[in-house]
Amino acid sequence: MQDFSSFARLLADQAGEIARHYFRQELAIDIKADNSPVTRADREIEQCLRSRISIERPDDGIFGEEYGEKVGRDGATWVIDPIDGTKSFITGLPLFGTLIGLLRGGVPVAGMIAVPVLDERWEAENGEARLNGRPCRTSRCRTVAEACLYTTSPDSFAGPDLATFAGLASGVRLQRFGGDCYAYGLLASGHIDLVVEAGLQPYDYLPIVPIVIAAGGCMTDWQGRPLTLRSDGRVVASASADLHAEAVRKLAAAR
Amino acid sequence: MQDFSSFARLLADQAGEIARHYFRQELAIDIKADNSPVTRADREIEQCLRSRISIERPDDGIFGEEYGEKVGRDGATWVIDPIDGTKSFITGLPLFGTLIGLLRGGVPVAGMIAVPVLDERWEAENGEARLNGRPCRTSRCRTVAEACLYTTSPDSFAGPDLATFAGLASGVRLQRFGGDCYAYGLLASGHIDLVVEAGLQPYDYLPIVPIVIAAGGCMTDWQGRPLTLRSDGRVVASASADLHAEAVRKLAAAR
Repeated sequence: MQDFSSFARLLADQAGEIARHYFRQELAIDIKADNSPVTRADREIEQCLRSRISIERPDDGIFGEEYGEKVGRDGATWVIDPIDGTKSFITGLPLFGTLIGLLRGGVPVAGMIAVPVLDERWEAENGEARLNGRPCRTSRCRTVAEACLYTTSPDSFAGPDLATFAGLASGVRLQRFGGDCYAYGLLASGHIDLVVEAGLQPYDYLPIVPIVIAAGGCMTDWQGRPLTLRSDGRVVASASADLHAEAVRKLAAAR
Repeated sequence: MQDFSSFARLLADQAGEIARHYFRQELAIDIKADNSPVTRADREIEQCLRSRISIERPDDGIFGEEYGEKVGRDGATWVIDPIDGTKSFITGLPLFGTLIGLLRGGVPVAGMIAVPVLDERWEAENGEARLNGRPCRTSRCRTVAEACLYTTSPDSFAGPDLATFAGLASGVRLQRFGGDCYAYGLLASGHIDLVVEAGLQPYDYLPIVPIVIAAGGCMTDWQGRPLTLRSDGRVVASASADLHAEAVRKLAAAR
């Protein structure tokens, strides 16, 4: 049995080939039940990865954005987001990526963020985080007041979550919108310090958890609990334990 | 005398060398009077471009973000934003660019968006728009309802401008935050259809105007008036005249 990284790299190679083929080409865009867009690129990538996983790891489960869950027999589950950042993808912005995660007994143990157009891959396995093969590390930022915060869009915060987010965001050093999975890569490499989001699905965050943690950061739900397949879609990732504790305190106090 | 593009390419080569040198390195970040961040990379790029312009075009004026205006003697003015998207630059996000524009008699006649890390350059001269040397064109989108809209950040809208923007944004097909100058490049290449911003400075928009117009689009203030050194910082760029007229109507109606 291959280790995670070498198999995930093969998967990411295939995903990247498809993504680059369709990037900036005219594509029909369908709107899914949850109002999010999807194209043939999302579908073809996921089909390709599912088929490859089924051949090489027939006993493993698969959980993907477009084609749901295949229950496994050995406690291992591959979590796949074929294109995280579909809105970026369909508007020609290169900050989208394929997410590939591995759960054992429901716990995220390895993951990859593969950004094909920019040729950047963050990956983690056995507690080691790397960007394009080189070890990467979160920043030393320890307080919200010193933090650079990213979140994909204010539209992802429903109801009182927007005010909760705004309360935290008003106290940071610098705040930016945009990024999708790329923001977590920037966090794992120490360029930003904090990512706060809501409305995410398990395939959006489970492949990323091992990368942030192996890089020295923390990543939980807004209450500080570990992220699982059944989390509520509210996610906070931080460069350090001190920063994380303060961010979780502020998110919890506002609720 | 060289034409605009060949000289602007030389300038962009030098700017890109400096930007890439400092990108993702530890840099001291100063906060300017307008609360925006600046680093030695912004300053060194502008100094380098000003010095080169002063040597090659001694009679031309210069208007730059970091070092203000040098009045010229021949009616030509170079407008420079050394790093548009400084917040992206200092957080490791590659979507920043150097903007170089040329005004004649105060009218923007040629411009370049140079994105060094992604190696993409949009340029316009003599009514022709190109991306990396190849002609580019805006989309055929003609209505707000069909449009993909980008804006850098909701924080740029002060007072009632936020509600005005939100009114327009609620009627588009797809809306995204982020991008800075890159969004206008995506517009000029037909990947998105609409960019609406406020709080911009002349060096943020004047170098971009010739690119959007030469690519087949429109770019004015929110009242539909041509952009000048004295515009109010509210900018709307559209893929087509029909779309632009509808967007301006909606922005004006809300005010």
